[in-house]
Amino acid sequence: MTTSTLDQPLSFQTSPDQYRHWKLTFDGDIATLAMNVDPEGGLREGYELKLNSYDLGVDIELADAINRLRFEHPEVRCLVLTGNLDRVFCAGANIVMLRSSSHAFKVNFCKYTNETRLGIEDAAENSGLRTLAALNGTASGGGYELALACERILLVDDRNSAVSFPEVPLLGVLPGTGGLTRITDKRKIRRDRCDVFSSIAEGIKGKRAVEWDLVDGTGPLSKWDEMVSTEARRMADEQPARGDQGVAFPPIEVECSEAEDGSPIRRYRYVTLAFHDSDRTCELTIEAPDACAQSADEALAQGAEWWVMQAFREFDDALLHLRMNHRDNALVLVRAKGSEATVRTTDALLAAKGNWFVNEVQHLVKRTLKRLDLTSRSLFAIADQDTTFVGSFLEIALACDRIYLLNDPEIPVHMGVTAMNAGALPMSNGISRLETRFLGEPERVSQVLAHQDREHFDAETADELGLATYAPDEIDWEDEVRLALEERTSFSPDALTGMEANLRFAGPETMETKIFGRLSAWQNWIFQRPNAVGERGALQCYGTPNRPEFNLERT
Amino acid sequence: MTTSTLDQPLSFQTSPDQYRHWKLTFDGDIATLAMNVDPEGGLREGYELKLNSYDLGVDIELADAINRLRFEHPEVRCLVLTGNLDRVFCAGANIVMLRSSSHAFKVNFCKYTNETRLGIEDAAENSGLRTLAALNGTASGGGYELALACERILLVDDRNSAVSFPEVPLLGVLPGTGGLTRITDKRKIRRDRCDVFSSIAEGIKGKRAVEWDLVDGTGPLSKWDEMVSTEARRMADEQPARGDQGVAFPPIEVECSEAEDGSPIRRYRYVTLAFHDSDRTCELTIEAPDACAQSADEALAQGAEWWVMQAFREFDDALLHLRMNHRDNALVLVRAKGSEATVRTTDALLAAKGNWFVNEVQHLVKRTLKRLDLTSRSLFAIADQDTTFVGSFLEIALACDRIYLLNDPEIPVHMGVTAMNAGALPMSNGISRLETRFLGEPERVSQVLAHQDREHFDAETADELGLATYAPDEIDWEDEVRLALEERTSFSPDALTGMEANLRFAGPETMETKIFGRLSAWQNWIFQRPNAVGERGALQCYGTPNRPEFNLERT
Repeated sequence: MTTSTLDQPLSFQTSPDQYRHWKLTFDGDIATLAMNVDPEGGLREGYELKLNSYDLGVDIELADAINRLRFEHPEVRCLVLTGNLDRVFCAGANIVMLRSSSHAFKVNFCKYTNETRLGIEDAAENSGLRTLAALNGTASGGGYELALACERILLVDDRNSAVSFPEVPLLGVLPGTGGLTRITDKRKIRRDRCDVFSSIAEGIKGKRAVEWDLVDGTGPLSKWDEMVSTEARRMADEQPARGDQGVAFPPIEVECSEAEDGSPIRRYRYVTLAFHDSDRTCELTIEAPDACAQSADEALAQGAEWWVMQAFREFDDALLHLRMNHRDNALVLVRAKGSEATVRTTDALLAAKGNWFVNEVQHLVKRTLKRLDLTSRSLFAIADQDTTFVGSFLEIALACDRIYLLNDPEIPVHMGVTAMNAGALPMSNGISRLETRFLGEPERVSQVLAHQDREHFDAETADELGLATYAPDEIDWEDEVRLALEERTSFSPDALTGMEANLRFAGPETMETKIFGRLSAWQNWIFQRPNAVGERGALQCYGTPNRPEFNLERT
Repeated sequence: MTTSTLDQPLSFQTSPDQYRHWKLTFDGDIATLAMNVDPEGGLREGYELKLNSYDLGVDIELADAINRLRFEHPEVRCLVLTGNLDRVFCAGANIVMLRSSSHAFKVNFCKYTNETRLGIEDAAENSGLRTLAALNGTASGGGYELALACERILLVDDRNSAVSFPEVPLLGVLPGTGGLTRITDKRKIRRDRCDVFSSIAEGIKGKRAVEWDLVDGTGPLSKWDEMVSTEARRMADEQPARGDQGVAFPPIEVECSEAEDGSPIRRYRYVTLAFHDSDRTCELTIEAPDACAQSADEALAQGAEWWVMQAFREFDDALLHLRMNHRDNALVLVRAKGSEATVRTTDALLAAKGNWFVNEVQHLVKRTLKRLDLTSRSLFAIADQDTTFVGSFLEIALACDRIYLLNDPEIPVHMGVTAMNAGALPMSNGISRLETRFLGEPERVSQVLAHQDREHFDAETADELGLATYAPDEIDWEDEVRLALEERTSFSPDALTGMEANLRFAGPETMETKIFGRLSAWQNWIFQRPNAVGERGALQCYGTPNRPEFNLERT
């Protein structure tokens, strides 16, 4: 297997005028996002993105488009996702790209595509952006998985076009971008039909696809455009409008520099990500400014400049950068600083949802925090001098594997709760971080939330409330944190990944946790198996003259 | 890595007089099962079972002991699980055994140990067999996982003894026999404490272990015996007795022969397992006899001879044999035959639970069916001539990945439902197989169950009810089944394992599904990673002069 890395650090920012793979058009309250992948537009050399197959770059544009629809186009009530190629909607993830990628890249690529698809569902649920997949041709593998992320799926009936999961029969891997989970748990298709469907490389088309509920409708080519636009119209009409005037979604700026030892530093306006390459840690700090919008109207007027939107977009970008461009980094020390009053004022606005824009920002904060939960790095919250782990910022601490709290009466450490800790920012498991933390002692959740309308509390109280993992005083602080860092970075990165994936999501399960916890874990396992990625593994052999040769042992 | 296989097929049958690793003693209504592993008693050469570490053989005896307590000793109301070594309760799975085992063996070993521990919890929940782990010394890794399967845990306070999960720090793998899931979801310990606990190789002892809820109590050596017996007495007293007189649990007999092509055949009294080595399939058939007990009393008088107990014990043994001794076998064709009247009469008795013994048998049937759900082989139910997929036998078909139903008016195929299909035999996800199958069409569950008090229905009706994956007539039957077999056995065994693990458990999640779906999947992934099993992986280096060397990339 060739392992290839990217020459340049990946950037997760783009905008419609830079899209190479999608066309976003508008017709009143209906938007159309048409997949039109540039075969030469891969993120790196070595593969051609034929037949609307995709790589990470295609998904970065998709994620951008969904965000823009939510922020720049509140007038849009229905999004039609379709393709611009003849007979093919989308062939899924590019095979040559997959097989020439390292294991770590494959896993992170799949995680990002999963997050993007869940983002489409989040837009439908929380922005009232109805989503219609109009499959103008065959949707295979990741192509059909993308359609599954939409609320409704129409498939053209041209006697050829089908939906399919050819991964198991052709590639020896899984429809792992949520595919298997969505057919069983979202569309709730009978398990034996799921089994048959996932075994038929050529897929299922026409009437049978409707009968098995793989798609919601089908129509002949002659009536296709009309059928799609009627359906989109119907869906849009069901939906109340969110707003008239959108908010621009400008690029976020980052200043890159180097520390004395050469470790990179990324400085955004409210977020800093500073690496310490020597010990494989980094410091991720978010800071609230002194002044902020005092009303939902003022927030809307500020738009993307509203500090909390900007800060969490930066935080999100920092996480993606960390995941993809610094894979050897083991441990993130997370801090939150700045004005408590700003956080409290802002959280109150987010909770009141005074207008569509504030609602969008709340969900952006929620998604960013979920991205943190799902980041496969050890996360230690560091609550030391001048820390402001309050409200939305407290959620960041609660997302961490541990919370180190400096408990010294001389040194101010601000911890506190707001309405944002009471369920407005749920984890993938559907409950709040406090509820997850105190699964065994639910009374503690109310004890913590009782501080909601009060001032911050000090370290001593925070510790009594159960918010600290360790709360050493100043004398022990430095040693304790240092030893913890040394210990953590000495462990097997894989064992930590597995451990964290299991410990972070106690309690209920959702489609989301099933996708990340079960489906992805099996896919990652398969991505390591010689039957997929060995010299004669199915993924390696596909499209070559070689036939796969399997080790037949069942595990 | 050395891959070793067993010279002889493994047997899963044993009895207390053959135990090498446990001592089972009785004192009225309290039983004590003391771990006393014979270091020389490993299942194969190459490792010594020091410090009460275990291999599969130790767990086979444990599973046997739990079954015997349920059937032979209904007078027992509390089981004390303890150790006979000084200062050590149990050191967990034997490391040398693990590292010298093939991947497939490791995975199947872990699955069996998980099933056994869940069996302990099932006994507590459904037989009223209270369980108390009396940790007379350190319980590490799998040793503590075993304790976690008990309702209550006491730990001796001798200043040395601790509970610990040293897997991540020392071995680069997970506490994967349910460990991580049980601390977060059963004991509901705070996630950051779980993180700390799973990082401290030496574990946590004394007061802190109680404070963190890792154990329920601790006491000094001088008062240890008294403390344990007081607690056991208290637990037993809370529990009503089940019965006075047990039912013997004799060995089940199997006759091994060979087919003409040399493929092995195992014939039990009611079950046959016939291999077709040439195409890597096998036929697993269960058959109901013509006559059967007509009342719960009669069933109790027959004891282990009651056909349904015997038949499902045989079925269970066949599954274990298939899993461990025929790992290249890809696809099981499952049939159920025999007297429908017998199945109906028996199911009615099982549903009525007329006495403790009938209740035990019902749970044995339930556990066997769960073992089938969790068997990592493709399962096709074959409903052809003279099939009796009725009631408990219908559950077998519903556990399969597909159901092939011969739909020909000339050929009788009996399908039918009884009370056993209405929730009495839940899957690991906590709901019935019908509810799981029709997750998206719950009204179909009642349509099927409406046939409960009627005669069987024919193939046509079964198909209309949604019980068939394919229902060809006689003309197409042979070709269709043959092609399906050929297709299935051509797929990557690993892709099938992952696909089936995802498709079989739609709907709600439980601790059980989390253990098998999430924790096990991550563990299996780690068991493939060079950081664990490579030449310089942690599992390989442990106990040798070599220090592990990690690939530091996070996935």
